[in-house]
Amino acid sequence: MSLKLTILGCHSATPRTNSFPTSQFLEINNRFFLIDCGEGTQTQLRRYKIKFSKIKHIFISHLHGDHFYGLIGLISTFRLLNRQTELHIFAPKGAKEIIDLQFKYAKSWASFPLHFHELVSKESELIYEDAKVEVHTIPLKHRIYTNGFLFKEKSKERKLDMNTIEEFKEIEICDYQNLKNGKDFILDSGEVIENNKLTLDPSLPISYAFCSDTKYNEEMISLIRKVDLLYHESTFLEDKADLAKTTKHSTALQAAKIAQLANVKKLILGHYSSRYKNIESFLIEAKNAFKAVELCESGKEFIIEN
Amino acid sequence: MSLKLTILGCHSATPRTNSFPTSQFLEINNRFFLIDCGEGTQTQLRRYKIKFSKIKHIFISHLHGDHFYGLIGLISTFRLLNRQTELHIFAPKGAKEIIDLQFKYAKSWASFPLHFHELVSKESELIYEDAKVEVHTIPLKHRIYTNGFLFKEKSKERKLDMNTIEEFKEIEICDYQNLKNGKDFILDSGEVIENNKLTLDPSLPISYAFCSDTKYNEEMISLIRKVDLLYHESTFLEDKADLAKTTKHSTALQAAKIAQLANVKKLILGHYSSRYKNIESFLIEAKNAFKAVELCESGKEFIIEN
Repeated sequence: MSLKLTILGCHSATPRTNSFPTSQFLEINNRFFLIDCGEGTQTQLRRYKIKFSKIKHIFISHLHGDHFYGLIGLISTFRLLNRQTELHIFAPKGAKEIIDLQFKYAKSWASFPLHFHELVSKESELIYEDAKVEVHTIPLKHRIYTNGFLFKEKSKERKLDMNTIEEFKEIEICDYQNLKNGKDFILDSGEVIENNKLTLDPSLPISYAFCSDTKYNEEMISLIRKVDLLYHESTFLEDKADLAKTTKHSTALQAAKIAQLANVKKLILGHYSSRYKNIESFLIEAKNAFKAVELCESGKEFIIEN
Repeated sequence: MSLKLTILGCHSATPRTNSFPTSQFLEINNRFFLIDCGEGTQTQLRRYKIKFSKIKHIFISHLHGDHFYGLIGLISTFRLLNRQTELHIFAPKGAKEIIDLQFKYAKSWASFPLHFHELVSKESELIYEDAKVEVHTIPLKHRIYTNGFLFKEKSKERKLDMNTIEEFKEIEICDYQNLKNGKDFILDSGEVIENNKLTLDPSLPISYAFCSDTKYNEEMISLIRKVDLLYHESTFLEDKADLAKTTKHSTALQAAKIAQLANVKKLILGHYSSRYKNIESFLIEAKNAFKAVELCESGKEFIIEN
């Protein structure tokens, strides 16, 4: 059980030669998710040798260009590569209309099943679920309708304690799944062996919260409490707190306060404004409120293993 | 009087780490034009240190992504940079609708006067003109409505032959413009001094024809005859002539044949398919039909001086 997050881009506003707008590639419990897709994302995927075929689900936080303008190009490339497998896009309402219009004028179309799941709710909702992972929206407060995303493993099965189990001849392999599910075992004599005598606690489910773009917003805390990893945007430092307020972005210190209040295990920062030449300043500022913090950089990987 | 063409991207289809889709920056007679705008164009402009403020006119050949997907990002960046000066975009019908829709969902807008000149004609037309330069469309034959563009200096004024002029005391400075315009001079005695005795031929107007994307199409020849520089797409080599036909692209040999029939001074090739690992093959093939040929590469400059 593990999580690997690869940063494809972590700067705000406009792409530059060596800094790219928001995009992340997440592997969690053998599921693969692309989060946001600024201009140049497909080039970054190639740079970090991430196979396009792994991407079956794309999550778009909002329809500002630095989170979204790379999507049409990526979809077009999938088509050129003769992709056949389906693609699911979770994005605010409007994304489908924009993509469809560009296809119309290009007299083009997706060669594969392309499913849009357009988001409109202002409440957190479960938008993706399979046997191992679920994804919930995290409503954010920005200039336009925006969601963060909470990716988490489902609660895991208990682990069999084979040393103890083997002491009971009556327990057979066909009973194991019931034990994993937490059931007690009843011997032929009628004696009940409690489940926690036969099994061990599972490792905790891993969780990752992506929160960008947003102003300082304590309402998100209940949704991201104790996550293993929190990405929180920090467009500005406190010297531009007024500008953060006006543009509905956050400072590094504000991101750190959210991390501290939500008691997360690790905070990572990104969405830096290009006005700051040295991003180390974001780290220094955030550490005033929360110690377990790191900076995102293109190509950097964050790995969590339970 | 000079022309400088900077290649920003010259590969077909999808952007990759070291190859970019079509875009060119043209300086002709102190006018500046951006031609096509594939994804990543703004990054390439920064890489080659071309000031964004120089761009006041953008010409888009057609609405396939590799010629167009970088436009919305570039316009958005102009806005973020607080551009005030007007921008003119010459593009097929549909471009405005696509840009407007993206602005609508981003709750954004251009901070500067943004003028779309949407093209629909299937005949060549004059679409831009000022005191020194004019731009005509070159109707091309591709899978969707596509234009190339012919950029040319206007016919120049004749040059004063000061050695001769100074022999005539009656010719004053205020007469010079008439001489430059080709008028004869009449002495007080009634004697007519023919203009070509007082002036010299001007240098020839420089011209550049951009032709991409297109199938082999001799109809363009009358429009591009004797241009100083011709960019003609060569997506394929002759080994894929069938594919060129199906997809309405050209081979390097076909581009060279057009250059030869139009008697242009120099041909440059681009829009290479990524299936060819060594672009030198395009040069070798083209030279079978036309010797004065060069390959486009990102960052390469072509300079013509008269």
